[in-house]
Amino acid sequence: MAIVVQKYGGTSVGTIDKIKNIAKRIAKRKKQGDDIVVVVSAMGKTTDILLEMANEISSNPDKRELDMLISTGEQVSIALLTIALKELGYDAISLTGPQAGIITVGFHTKARIDDIDIKNVKTNVGRGKIVVVAGFQGVDEEGNITTLGRGGSDTTAVALAAKLDAICEIYTDVDGIYTVDPRLFSTAKKLDNICYEEMVEMASLGAGVMETRSIEIAQRFNVPIYVALSSEEWPGTYIKEFDESMESKVITGLSVSDDDIMITINDVPNEIGNIAMVFEKLASNDINIDMISQTAPSRGYINISFTVPKSDKFLVDKVLEKIKNKLTGIEINIEEDITKLSVVGIGMKSQSGVAAKMFKIFADNKIEFKQVTTSEIRISYTINTNDKEKAVVAVAKEFNL
Amino acid sequence: MAIVVQKYGGTSVGTIDKIKNIAKRIAKRKKQGDDIVVVVSAMGKTTDILLEMANEISSNPDKRELDMLISTGEQVSIALLTIALKELGYDAISLTGPQAGIITVGFHTKARIDDIDIKNVKTNVGRGKIVVVAGFQGVDEEGNITTLGRGGSDTTAVALAAKLDAICEIYTDVDGIYTVDPRLFSTAKKLDNICYEEMVEMASLGAGVMETRSIEIAQRFNVPIYVALSSEEWPGTYIKEFDESMESKVITGLSVSDDDIMITINDVPNEIGNIAMVFEKLASNDINIDMISQTAPSRGYINISFTVPKSDKFLVDKVLEKIKNKLTGIEINIEEDITKLSVVGIGMKSQSGVAAKMFKIFADNKIEFKQVTTSEIRISYTINTNDKEKAVVAVAKEFNL
Repeated sequence: MAIVVQKYGGTSVGTIDKIKNIAKRIAKRKKQGDDIVVVVSAMGKTTDILLEMANEISSNPDKRELDMLISTGEQVSIALLTIALKELGYDAISLTGPQAGIITVGFHTKARIDDIDIKNVKTNVGRGKIVVVAGFQGVDEEGNITTLGRGGSDTTAVALAAKLDAICEIYTDVDGIYTVDPRLFSTAKKLDNICYEEMVEMASLGAGVMETRSIEIAQRFNVPIYVALSSEEWPGTYIKEFDESMESKVITGLSVSDDDIMITINDVPNEIGNIAMVFEKLASNDINIDMISQTAPSRGYINISFTVPKSDKFLVDKVLEKIKNKLTGIEINIEEDITKLSVVGIGMKSQSGVAAKMFKIFADNKIEFKQVTTSEIRISYTINTNDKEKAVVAVAKEFNL
Repeated sequence: MAIVVQKYGGTSVGTIDKIKNIAKRIAKRKKQGDDIVVVVSAMGKTTDILLEMANEISSNPDKRELDMLISTGEQVSIALLTIALKELGYDAISLTGPQAGIITVGFHTKARIDDIDIKNVKTNVGRGKIVVVAGFQGVDEEGNITTLGRGGSDTTAVALAAKLDAICEIYTDVDGIYTVDPRLFSTAKKLDNICYEEMVEMASLGAGVMETRSIEIAQRFNVPIYVALSSEEWPGTYIKEFDESMESKVITGLSVSDDDIMITINDVPNEIGNIAMVFEKLASNDINIDMISQTAPSRGYINISFTVPKSDKFLVDKVLEKIKNKLTGIEINIEEDITKLSVVGIGMKSQSGVAAKMFKIFADNKIEFKQVTTSEIRISYTINTNDKEKAVVAVAKEFNL
């Protein structure tokens, strides 16, 4: 008899009817003989509504109190789901993050799980109960309620699965991981399997199904993840350790992101410390830099391009103003309509030629690219957003995605 | 520098604007030099909304899970109020019932406070913080979240005040304790002081300001209570130990309740155990009996009348059916339009003649009464609801209330 950790996101428990349906699914699975720990998020837009209330009172509400406030969202979900399970005749118990022993470190509203005191969960599972745990929350060593930030409920589920030596099933509003976002490429194929490394790259590149951090935890503790639809019983996608049978394809998926802007700084004097100063100034303002490309110095000057999140544009503008004052004579260009297109595949480790193929696709289709960066299992390109559709179709067809 | 425990009820924190106003009041008081612990209830109708959600799922939702569910209401209030206090520049911290060390025993949804581990509250008060505690909730010895049932937030406030050797201020939507409900007798006077014993009688007789249990705790630990309006700074009423200056009046207040029905059973055979059986059957169904009157046996038969809560009528009917089967020949009458009118006063202990005066008032005003019961400081009458207004005015005028 295996232990299964199932996670249901906010839209899956968004209404009373949906909660009743989820309860039926869980009950059916329990009847088949598995022990079940369920992790749930807050119902639908609950968290947003609570945050709005806080913002009506303060433009910068205290973060400890925000955690106190928004953690109520999951607490409502776990109570209602447990009531629904009991109504179906199944023994169940709800546990808040603190009650489930989720110990966190770090800052309020973006705490990290340090450890799980799994005793309470295990005892209740041992008594035959379905244990319903509030996702996204925990308790710090002073007894304060904390929340885990974006993707927090996934993280709770994966961490619990790691402690319980269980499989982690993530039920959501998409039915698995696709080679390409089906909204961009309608004939995209659903993957049966994807390995952790690929999924980390896909997630960090904008494939919105799961946050990078929870996949990283799964990888570290070797927790198999199954991503599937919460509303129907269709087959989903396994995220797990790479195995031989996965190797046949060079490219597993294609990710596209429109979330960045590209900054180009031309005519930076080629003196030691100038480029370092630029990135230091950006880093000290907590601006996350992604793709960086630099040309070789020419006539004593360097040109450099990098991408930053669109959401930081206001901050970036202020930092660039300061940089301009330090480095007189430089020229700054900002391009907002750029798209990052990446191909990901564990097969790239052993098979070469992907970059060459990509360059040929771009040339054949007259797509100009501005930057290229590579990792062991990924190649990313910055292109004009105008070329996005053409590029996605061309790459997806070439690699049979 | 004194410690003050202030309690604000659900209507006092019903909107974001009201929460902001309460924060200003608390801040002003803090500025005057007092240390402040605040107890708050859930915002407005929050608890009802949560209960409705549970009832949509189950007609008999699990009580542990109900506690998990409805305790979120106060948690939202404490977080928002603390954010509001911090926005005003005051240091504050919110604590859930469990975090405030409210240890409970007894059943879910109607737990009782067993003890308070006051350390966390005291430490934070010692650091100069305004401590905002969630009313109505606690934690049992297994770590489950519990709620205290009706009047629970008052109980939290009084119990905290007892532990902190503080005064307890209850801010609500009435501006104090009145001699008579002003809706029934418009010239009723507001009391400056009322003693615990009188207030317990008044509360248990339906004077809706506070629940009996919290006044009993205040009496046991000698916690002075101050009841006043939350929206304005008008003088309220002190509930405290009896002192000499209070003694001048024989009758402090008049309470009226329409919450009961009266059952009369005629022609019960005067055999040992028959009457006991009647009350045993009612008690085993958790039906609370209030006023009992019995006539002396006549020709081998007894007539007996008693009142029970209107809300138990359905259950009472079923029990009476059973009793009828056991005691053939009895006749049962149920009167639904009855009112219980009580006069309360600590002065009755030392001054006689109140009963005589009451009988005369009833006779002069041609008011028929069905039952009389007395305690040391109270006399209660059951009358027809039709006579209520006439009786209230006559009694209030006679005793100058």
